[in-house]
Amino acid sequence: MTTISVGMLGCGTVGSGVLTLLNRGDNQISESLGVHFNIKKIAVKHPDKKRGLNITKDLSFTGEIENVINDPSIQIVIEVMGTLDQAYKAIQQAITNGKSVITANKELIALKGPQLTKLAHDYHVDLYYEASVAGGIPILRVLNESLITDQITGLTGIVNGTSNFVLSAMKTDHSSYEESLKQAQSLGYAEANPIKDIEGIDAAYKLSILSQLAFGHSINLKQLKRKGIEGVTSNDINGAEVLGLTIKPAVIARQKDHELFTLVGPVAVYKQNPLANVNGVENSVLVTSTALGTTSYSGPGAGSEPTANSVMSDLLAVTKHILLEQIGTSFNKTTDDIGESSLMNLPLTYFLTLNSFTGDEAKISPENYEFLKQVVKVNHAYFCVTKLLTKEQKNELTSALANGVTEVHFYPILK
Amino acid sequence: MTTISVGMLGCGTVGSGVLTLLNRGDNQISESLGVHFNIKKIAVKHPDKKRGLNITKDLSFTGEIENVINDPSIQIVIEVMGTLDQAYKAIQQAITNGKSVITANKELIALKGPQLTKLAHDYHVDLYYEASVAGGIPILRVLNESLITDQITGLTGIVNGTSNFVLSAMKTDHSSYEESLKQAQSLGYAEANPIKDIEGIDAAYKLSILSQLAFGHSINLKQLKRKGIEGVTSNDINGAEVLGLTIKPAVIARQKDHELFTLVGPVAVYKQNPLANVNGVENSVLVTSTALGTTSYSGPGAGSEPTANSVMSDLLAVTKHILLEQIGTSFNKTTDDIGESSLMNLPLTYFLTLNSFTGDEAKISPENYEFLKQVVKVNHAYFCVTKLLTKEQKNELTSALANGVTEVHFYPILK
Ligand SMILES: NC(=O)c1ccc[n+]([C@@H]2O[C@H](COP(=O)([O-])OP(=O)(O)OC[C@H]3O[C@@H](n4cnc5c(N)ncnc54)[C@H](OP(=O)(O)O)[C@@H]3O)[C@@H](O)[C@H]2O)c1
Ligand SMILES: NC(=O)c1ccc[n+]([C@@H]2O[C@H](COP(=O)([O-])OP(=O)(O)OC[C@H]3O[C@@H](n4cnc5c(N)ncnc54)[C@H](OP(=O)(O)O)[C@@H]3O)[C@@H](O)[C@H]2O)c1
Repeated sequence: MTTISVGMLGCGTVGSGVLTLLNRGDNQISESLGVHFNIKKIAVKHPDKKRGLNITKDLSFTGEIENVINDPSIQIVIEVMGTLDQAYKAIQQAITNGKSVITANKELIALKGPQLTKLAHDYHVDLYYEASVAGGIPILRVLNESLITDQITGLTGIVNGTSNFVLSAMKTDHSSYEESLKQAQSLGYAEANPIKDIEGIDAAYKLSILSQLAFGHSINLKQLKRKGIEGVTSNDINGAEVLGLTIKPAVIARQKDHELFTLVGPVAVYKQNPLANVNGVENSVLVTSTALGTTSYSGPGAGSEPTANSVMSDLLAVTKHILLEQIGTSFNKTTDDIGESSLMNLPLTYFLTLNSFTGDEAKISPENYEFLKQVVKVNHAYFCVTKLLTKEQKNELTSALANGVTEVHFYPILK
Repeated sequence: MTTISVGMLGCGTVGSGVLTLLNRGDNQISESLGVHFNIKKIAVKHPDKKRGLNITKDLSFTGEIENVINDPSIQIVIEVMGTLDQAYKAIQQAITNGKSVITANKELIALKGPQLTKLAHDYHVDLYYEASVAGGIPILRVLNESLITDQITGLTGIVNGTSNFVLSAMKTDHSSYEESLKQAQSLGYAEANPIKDIEGIDAAYKLSILSQLAFGHSINLKQLKRKGIEGVTSNDINGAEVLGLTIKPAVIARQKDHELFTLVGPVAVYKQNPLANVNGVENSVLVTSTALGTTSYSGPGAGSEPTANSVMSDLLAVTKHILLEQIGTSFNKTTDDIGESSLMNLPLTYFLTLNSFTGDEAKISPENYEFLKQVVKVNHAYFCVTKLLTKEQKNELTSALANGVTEVHFYPILK
């Protein structure tokens, strides 16, 4: 039996899940791989805090990250503490110390993934981050091992459970945005400060990571236009339902002629699209590729044990490499320099609602109404644009409508 | 640039897809792995047949399998010819000759998987068969790499595209079983002799392979009770729809207290179950495991390029092992000796139809009708059993009903 020494940074939701799974799967792992994991040190913020861990083994907590990343006996570091700068520094140090690293930190990988991948490559260590996107869904390993032989042309996903929970609750319970968000918070599906989730920041991180593996391209997050779910009204949700559509918080990336067209924000999804049935905190990613067509991957997008299982699958991958003395095959793909642009620059169909429109068509001037009728299917206050609209036409339509209404909401439609 | 010599057995639907993908992905593969594949020899039944392959390279066809499996320069053999005995012998020979093997042959792996895995292990070569289950969906690799750290408790899948196409068409087009099957044949989705597909034989093979990886248990196919789709009537399909159910051709395996409960046959699926939306030739597998809960994997279940992509992902896995000189890590799992039993032995809820029942309740004797009312929700000729029924109760109900009707169809209900 080989013993592999592991250090952990963080022991919160994900970290304690890792300990639970290591404990539960101990026999299975030692049987199938002939390996036992020794969790040597765990760095946390409050080393003296009482932690209700149902682990029988002695655990050694420390308040100093350095005690973990500089311990020469530790072969693998699992970073599940979050933070950007601190985690970046710690992981760089761990790698230069010759340790393989597993992280669940989406912000870090979205912003510094290529740099860390290069560093890991230079130091011949592994760097895996399956847990950073879509919690328990093994989407990164699938992209890296099963779709690597195919040409990916697009991906569409629901990758933020909080936003999806809120929009699902607005639809199912006919509750307001505020009520649904409160419910998400009381159930532990949204943080006290949910800004990163509801403004699409978290989703943008994940799109960037997916895009690194799918297209070899790290998205410029500063330039990426994203939209949160704060602006989605009950009127929009209900109007979509009338037309057989469901509003979902999506991330989209489509490659076309050396340009990557991206979208982070709510879209209107037709019933037959598999994403229409992804509800609550579930996540799902649809990948379109030349040979395969569309394949889809769904499951829990967060949570202690699902996320921890992704960390565990990384841990097994690194362990196999250590046993075979061939470390250094992280997730990666040749970085290709392609342009970036908003998906809205492509001709799309849109669902649109007029939020102060009471059904009285006269509020729209006759000539604008004529224009509207040419391009949209009018259904009371809801309009479903059934023709492809360019960005210019969309702007034209917005200003045409704006005369009669206070607010126009546009949602790209996914078939 | 390392050149890897590959031999192929068979060059039909899947084999020609492999050649297409190898040709299309050549640059990508040599760039990312530094490897070039040389397809040295291809054994086929009719070596002189004109094949419309859009491949620029010279290909060497032979009528003798031995010319491929005994060629000392060939490192990897791809078996995509089908057959049971011939393929078994050829693969055994290839393995004992020190070659790694990739196969798409579900029948062979379902029946001889454990023996071949052991042989490959003894000879330190790889044996992969991603293409054998659910065509383009990377389900075996997911089970083997991402779910291996979790405990799988159940799996449910639609893994036969032909059956799913026929039942989907019966629902969508309101056509009969015979018409739908003819349509499937004319579209190339069903063979001239579709018996293996419609009788559930093909699905049973796939369930056995899934179960080898998920539970370490190879199902005894001789004892497995399976049901085909031939008996599904339009009345059943329509009746299910009235109650919000869709009839789907499923494979199910559930582990409970060291026993594996299995089912191969049509089931009635509630709308909110993701399988209800898997239509046409699409396949989907839902896996339930302790840490992850339910994850699902969907995509094309067959076809030239999707299936070939699964072969390609196996080819890349073997190639990485060859480059790193560590061949011998096939798909496998410790075989566990667990019992087997029909899922019908567990308490289930059932949807049932009375196929000669015209809505006239008097056809059922009063005492039987009383019994029926106790356990079922009566809705014209369709009954939805809303209580859990044991096997005994189900039999009791069948004979109670049989008095007044000619045929009773039972479908286990999936929520
Ligand atoms: N939760 C999920 O479902 C999920 C899903 C996917 C990815 N992730 C990612 O996983 C990471 C961890 O998330 P989490 O939910 O487990 O967080 P969490 O519950 O807040 O736990 C964070 C842990 O890190 C420790 N920590 C924080 N700052 C530290 C510092 N400067 N030095 C040392 N220790 C520090 C904390 O110590 P104390 O315990 O002493 O306070 C705590 O144990 C994040 O990057 C997150 O984005 C989480
Ligand atoms: N088609 C799919 O979508 C799919 C999906 C998953 C798995 N599979 C599996 O993949 C395998 C191949 O399927 P396929 O659809 O590609 O079959 P196919 O189109 O019928 O092709 C079979 C090929 O094998 C050759 N062959 C048959 N018997 C042979 C023998 N005794 N010796 C040498 N060559 C022989 C044939 O030669 P000729 O060309 O000279 O006749 C042909 O090239 C099967 O095991 C099947 O179950 C297929």
